[in-house]
Amino acid sequence: MYRTFNNGFLRLEHINQEVTLCGWVQKMRDLGGMTFVDLRDRYGTTQLVFNMEINSKICELARQMGREYVVQVKGKVVKRSAPNKNIPTGQIEVEVSDLKILNKSKNPPFTIEDETDGGDDLRMQYRYLDLRRSVIQKKIILRSEISFYTRSFLKKEGFLEVETPVLIKSTPEGARDFIVPSRLNQGKFYALPQSPQTFKQLLMVSGFDKYYQIVKCFRDEDFRSDRQPEFTQIDCEMSFVDMNDILTTFESLIADILFKTKGVRIGTIPRITYDQSIRDYGTDKPDIRFEMKIKNLTNICKGNQFPLFDQADTILGIVVPGAAGLSRKKIDSLIDWVKRPQIGATGMIYCKFNHLDTYKSSVDKYFNTDDLASWKEFCEANDGDLLLILAGKEKQTINAMGQLRIEVADRMGLRDPNLYKPIWVTDFPLFDFDEENKTFHAMHHPFTSPKEEDIELLVSHPQAVKANAYDMALNGTEIGGGSIRIHDRKLQNQIFNLLGFTNEQAYEQFGFLMEAFEYGAPPHGGIAFGLDRICAVIEGVDSIRDFIAFPKNNSGRDIMLDAPSKIHDDQLKELGL
Amino acid sequence: MYRTFNNGFLRLEHINQEVTLCGWVQKMRDLGGMTFVDLRDRYGTTQLVFNMEINSKICELARQMGREYVVQVKGKVVKRSAPNKNIPTGQIEVEVSDLKILNKSKNPPFTIEDETDGGDDLRMQYRYLDLRRSVIQKKIILRSEISFYTRSFLKKEGFLEVETPVLIKSTPEGARDFIVPSRLNQGKFYALPQSPQTFKQLLMVSGFDKYYQIVKCFRDEDFRSDRQPEFTQIDCEMSFVDMNDILTTFESLIADILFKTKGVRIGTIPRITYDQSIRDYGTDKPDIRFEMKIKNLTNICKGNQFPLFDQADTILGIVVPGAAGLSRKKIDSLIDWVKRPQIGATGMIYCKFNHLDTYKSSVDKYFNTDDLASWKEFCEANDGDLLLILAGKEKQTINAMGQLRIEVADRMGLRDPNLYKPIWVTDFPLFDFDEENKTFHAMHHPFTSPKEEDIELLVSHPQAVKANAYDMALNGTEIGGGSIRIHDRKLQNQIFNLLGFTNEQAYEQFGFLMEAFEYGAPPHGGIAFGLDRICAVIEGVDSIRDFIAFPKNNSGRDIMLDAPSKIHDDQLKELGL
Repeated sequence: MYRTFNNGFLRLEHINQEVTLCGWVQKMRDLGGMTFVDLRDRYGTTQLVFNMEINSKICELARQMGREYVVQVKGKVVKRSAPNKNIPTGQIEVEVSDLKILNKSKNPPFTIEDETDGGDDLRMQYRYLDLRRSVIQKKIILRSEISFYTRSFLKKEGFLEVETPVLIKSTPEGARDFIVPSRLNQGKFYALPQSPQTFKQLLMVSGFDKYYQIVKCFRDEDFRSDRQPEFTQIDCEMSFVDMNDILTTFESLIADILFKTKGVRIGTIPRITYDQSIRDYGTDKPDIRFEMKIKNLTNICKGNQFPLFDQADTILGIVVPGAAGLSRKKIDSLIDWVKRPQIGATGMIYCKFNHLDTYKSSVDKYFNTDDLASWKEFCEANDGDLLLILAGKEKQTINAMGQLRIEVADRMGLRDPNLYKPIWVTDFPLFDFDEENKTFHAMHHPFTSPKEEDIELLVSHPQAVKANAYDMALNGTEIGGGSIRIHDRKLQNQIFNLLGFTNEQAYEQFGFLMEAFEYGAPPHGGIAFGLDRICAVIEGVDSIRDFIAFPKNNSGRDIMLDAPSKIHDDQLKELGL
Repeated sequence: MYRTFNNGFLRLEHINQEVTLCGWVQKMRDLGGMTFVDLRDRYGTTQLVFNMEINSKICELARQMGREYVVQVKGKVVKRSAPNKNIPTGQIEVEVSDLKILNKSKNPPFTIEDETDGGDDLRMQYRYLDLRRSVIQKKIILRSEISFYTRSFLKKEGFLEVETPVLIKSTPEGARDFIVPSRLNQGKFYALPQSPQTFKQLLMVSGFDKYYQIVKCFRDEDFRSDRQPEFTQIDCEMSFVDMNDILTTFESLIADILFKTKGVRIGTIPRITYDQSIRDYGTDKPDIRFEMKIKNLTNICKGNQFPLFDQADTILGIVVPGAAGLSRKKIDSLIDWVKRPQIGATGMIYCKFNHLDTYKSSVDKYFNTDDLASWKEFCEANDGDLLLILAGKEKQTINAMGQLRIEVADRMGLRDPNLYKPIWVTDFPLFDFDEENKTFHAMHHPFTSPKEEDIELLVSHPQAVKANAYDMALNGTEIGGGSIRIHDRKLQNQIFNLLGFTNEQAYEQFGFLMEAFEYGAPPHGGIAFGLDRICAVIEGVDSIRDFIAFPKNNSGRDIMLDAPSKIHDDQLKELGL
């Protein structure tokens, strides 16, 4: 037994107790006859006192220590003369009577503090030291708790955790599959799963009824700052359910997680269709912590000889509440922002609804006060509000306006980090139509079922077919999505054909699943949440990286490990490569 | 909402309720005017009644169904005239008023019954149908529960679940690593982890204090019937602990699992040293459900001109209680058994301690009754017992006797499947000495710490050094093992040198870990349990395969998926292979 307590535990009630503590030296202060040491572990920090008068030998040993030394001390809990109210153990300190240095430490390459002086690369190289920082530890602990709450909730709901294989079949369409050469079956390869999709559907065919798994998935694609080649999903599937059953079950899960991690009660999660989401928010993952819905001004704005409007397919506006006083400089900065190639607008029109009806717009040349008043009325704007307008081709303008809405909210401080506003977006289109190649792609994946009432459109008008597919967005980030699956082989074949699969290709890729559907597949559906993403959104940060103990960088490299790396020729030879 | 209840739920108290059920057709019996259907899901079976007189249309539809059809029925719960006491729903049946066939099924290639007519290969090919069989479902459900109990226990004990990476660095010694070519870093490879060993040690360096993970591990080796290329470990590590802390923590985990799954209370788990285990049981994973400890007869048996004994290094015996009456045929069958090449004994001597002192041995020519009486006394045998003796070279004889002990217990029915007797085996040798190449190998792994009192032997007599290493065996199967690790870099270097690593090799393989040890590594240790194995031992079966939803066969192939398989040339080209 190395210790009797951890460093976050001791309080006034322990005064006079003899204790043994272990931990890392966080900080040392030498005040002549006394040496104070902050001893740290993941539970907290305890102040140690070494007194030259009481025990000079121990005190001298203590003075030889440096930051990050690992020590064991014995001593008595005493009341601090100057309490520190910022930490839970701040009322007490430990008068050390015995000290054992368990391990020394070189001077760390950056300071192990919440605010560190280490750059990104250095911290990644010494990730094991970066992970000592309390800000990072808290994120890993949060993740651990979210995983546990998820499992507890799903267990209570009757879900079984079933592990699906990691070494699976590589498929011709799997251009983003990682593949794994087999030593025992030379010339043949496994693949790592991009998701356990087919396995969870097979488990439904097998009658497992409710399945979940918190599972690593793999995608070998060009990395963006917020993608990792391996990522973790909360993967779920249920039988004999419709969309409503799934939404109800999993909104309780998210409510449970938010309550347990943040003490937030979210109530019923609103549901809107994909079409409504695009119309009102310009995106399928709306941030509804603030209103500022998009207004379609196409009809009301056209016909005043203003070429930008008259030539536009679509004219959209958002009303920024109380922002009529925004400076010219700030508005110009927004105009520059919308012109960035990622946003792609050619410009932005604004209109200030000042008090006392002194309206002012950037298109006063074309529109008089009455026009502006009609806009104001149409948009349900109030005095003091600012109207921002984008015009252009439909798709691009919707997209740009969706992004502008978020950017403006960011700049106006409307995205309250203490608010949690999940929303379900349902009824996605079944297909994405590739204008260029005139081909259909599955918007979710090829197993997604069309809405019953749209099935006849599959032949006549596939673009219009809506799917039993749903996403959950939280504060403007998609955290999960799923669908009711097709359980009928004939319908599945029809979809495969529309997606341009030959029967042969479909069989090569999904033969076992299609065969399984011949033996009594139940109606089923499911959902997958991104665990890394949920953690990041709950903590209100953009990057998932700090919620992963040993993440990879943007090139898919683990700098600490130096992976991927070369392997020996004889190893390659043994694999037949 | 497809159903109001599952098929295992309804009882007498639900009589007269209108219910909706879904499930698979397990069985149909047509009794003229009435058709009875057993409707199955993972929760149970409910009997449905279709009555020609009451609803002929529905009844006729029902008669068109076949096995494994998926249906939804509405109806009224009624009391059965002939209750079935073998199933929980046997008191009631449901009088069907509405029937919907949700999906048809082809005739399955084997019967979906506990006792099926399907062979191994067929069942593997249609694993999704095999998984419908209740005997298999129960095993997968058991696994899910053991995982959950494990997580709950470890959470309560303050362990954090931390995910470690799956795409890691391949090492030159990793001849059994699966490797993964990187598309974005051509010519370079990741490897899949054989265990998260180095990561959990890094997490201790990072101060996470208590870590666990239920994690997939990978080993690309020739498969034995009971090995899988991917397998699951309950992987744990703790800081500031000695061996006793770990054994205490994890015997509580195993006790918790055995109590929750089997209702068994095991009490304190006995601990014996490796040397003692080999001496008493001829193995480091003893089955202690029965006694029958090995007796060393070397001194007592030599010197009577019996060449087999006089030329042997070691003479060992076991006393089989009450087996003196064993027939000549049964003894001969045991003799044949020990002569099998896997056991490798040249023969077996027996001695029957019949009642009334009429002892009888297979070596009466060399040993008289007094000799046999002295054996009996030495072995503490009783009248009616049978003594079995093997003699030969030390190591081989110990090993053969360990196996004979188990075989005899099996044949005598001494291995009670309802008993659960875990045991800790501690103080393993630190090194395995390879006589042929005169080299040392790490018995557990190179991070295992030597016993403090043996450190000086590292120079003079490495073979004699014992390790702070421990295994847990349950009913004769190793289910887990671990060690207290080295946290001192100098000692770690010394061990690497003994293991024949050059500094360069050690750095290439474990550089980041050795560097981490420079920055204040705490004393730490851990353990890993084989989850698949725990499930199998608890269910009293030899094979882990049925506890894995989608297992691979002995050649590492997934027959259902047809994996591993060939991949397209352009995919290979893109990977630079």
